[in-house]
Amino acid sequence: MTAITRAEALARVEAGIAKAEEIGVDMNIAIVDDGGHLVQFSRQDNAWLGSIDIALKKAKTAVLFRMPTSVIGEISQPGGPVYGIEHSNAGLVTFGGGLPITDEEGNVIGAVGVSGGDVVQDTTVAEAVVRAAVPARA
Amino acid sequence: MTAITRAEALARVEAGIAKAEEIGVDMNIAIVDDGGHLVQFSRQDNAWLGSIDIALKKAKTAVLFRMPTSVIGEISQPGGPVYGIEHSNAGLVTFGGGLPITDEEGNVIGAVGVSGGDVVQDTTVAEAVVRAAVPARA
Amino acid sequence: MTAITRAEALARVEAGIAKAEEIGVDMNIAIVDDGGHLVQFSRQDNAWLGSIDIALKKAKTAVLFRMPTSVIGEISQPGGPVYGIEHSNAGLVTFGGGLPITDEEGNVIGAVGVSGGDVVQDTTVAEAVVRAAVPARA
Amino acid sequence: MTAITRAEALARVEAGIAKAEEIGVDMNIAIVDDGGHLVQFSRQDNAWLGSIDIALKKAKTAVLFRMPTSVIGEISQPGGPVYGIEHSNAGLVTFGGGLPITDEEGNVIGAVGVSGGDVVQDTTVAEAVVRAAVPARA
Repeated sequence: MTAITRAEALARVEAGIAKAEEIGVDMNIAIVDDGGHLVQFSRQDNAWLGSIDIALKKAKTAVLFRMPTSVIGEISQPGGPVYGIEHSNAGLVTFGGGLPITDEEGNVIGAVGVSGGDVVQDTTVAEAVVRAAVPARA
Repeated sequence: MTAITRAEALARVEAGIAKAEEIGVDMNIAIVDDGGHLVQFSRQDNAWLGSIDIALKKAKTAVLFRMPTSVIGEISQPGGPVYGIEHSNAGLVTFGGGLPITDEEGNVIGAVGVSGGDVVQDTTVAEAVVRAAVPARA
Repeated sequence: MTAITRAEALARVEAGIAKAEEIGVDMNIAIVDDGGHLVQFSRQDNAWLGSIDIALKKAKTAVLFRMPTSVIGEISQPGGPVYGIEHSNAGLVTFGGGLPITDEEGNVIGAVGVSGGDVVQDTTVAEAVVRAAVPARA
Repeated sequence: MTAITRAEALARVEAGIAKAEEIGVDMNIAIVDDGGHLVQFSRQDNAWLGSIDIALKKAKTAVLFRMPTSVIGEISQPGGPVYGIEHSNAGLVTFGGGLPITDEEGNVIGAVGVSGGDVVQDTTVAEAVVRAAVPARA
């Protein structure tokens, strides 16, 4: 499987920062690899401190289940099929702002987690990270 | 009390894997003893990484209360009698996929936890583990 | 990078169990992948319960630093260069019994952790796991 | 007090990466602010996964006590005045590679933690981060 590189992760985070500046919200942006291990992180100057951990956990959550955090949020509501799943894996974050990152063949090679705005803003920045132009992979 | 052996746990996990292959979902399967301690575990090649901990916690949850995890899920919903119970015992998982394992006399000798599909699929595999033919007990 | 499969991990654990039976010590044996995530685990019938977590942490430790746990133990003694490293990563185990597993090209694709005997016995079993014949990799 | 900015933290991490490439060791580099909260992080492609947490904890340790982690390591040896201090603050790392970052007036405005090589290499990179040219502060 293709591995996410530092060069790619750095390019993705900077693309996310550019989008955050465009929409005028200070964000925390984290990129993890396919095993959920941190590769790159950046916090803008006035971003909420409480959003650091949320960004990290959104990225972890998205890669551990290879799906957007928002999907897990929908199915883990009270009465839903996986209610309480957020207590597993030393804590998940199950609202929007975490997205898997895939290679050209569709394999999940990592994930991004964004936190600092509302869920729509976080998701907008996460999508910019996913769509970012990245250096060619080996 | 009858103790669950490695031989029995291995046979049960492999029976669960066979069922998982039959239904075409990659699973994590864990067997714990009557004290909640891990005996046997196996992860299929494309199973979600986030489901490892869930399988382990489902098995723990099922044996700690000697009932299916789905039952605990029902009574721990908002407004329910044990709302929030998942915060105890260093984290429980309270949706379907964890089942107690009993001996011929009905004593709980362990439990299985399965995670990797939806709750119906997880439960199907857990039931196959519970019903598996096992080596004769001493 | 080559990924460790369930088939390989199962074959390795069973080879370790065979060695444990040969030397007459009840063991816990854990295999993790290159990201430190559990793939396969087995506990023999009279193995110490306290050794479950030690086996898991030895495997984690060996893969996180791509070296035998015994090496980390040597350099983390009082006065040593990385004294106290065991407090990182939610707890490491830094005595012998954890070994990396490599593919044909020398890439670390996972690790084994063994606990249940003394350190010499644990290491003997871990070495059997590393040397085990495994199914052909894809 | 001067606050460490994202622009400064990014410039510092990249300076550290350049030094790591110069000495040929793959590193994890973390920058925290004066409250110990993460600002910037980067992991090189073949850095040990176990060093992510160590880099983060070295940065935290250096800022929490406003001194190099190596100094804390010296005084926390068995028999030393603060033996066991690494158990506080949800885990410290007390060997070299963590350094405070100060402003022109000598105020500690953050810290860097580096992990991936031996302690001498980690410290070399941390010193490059501390000495890095940074954007003018507001």
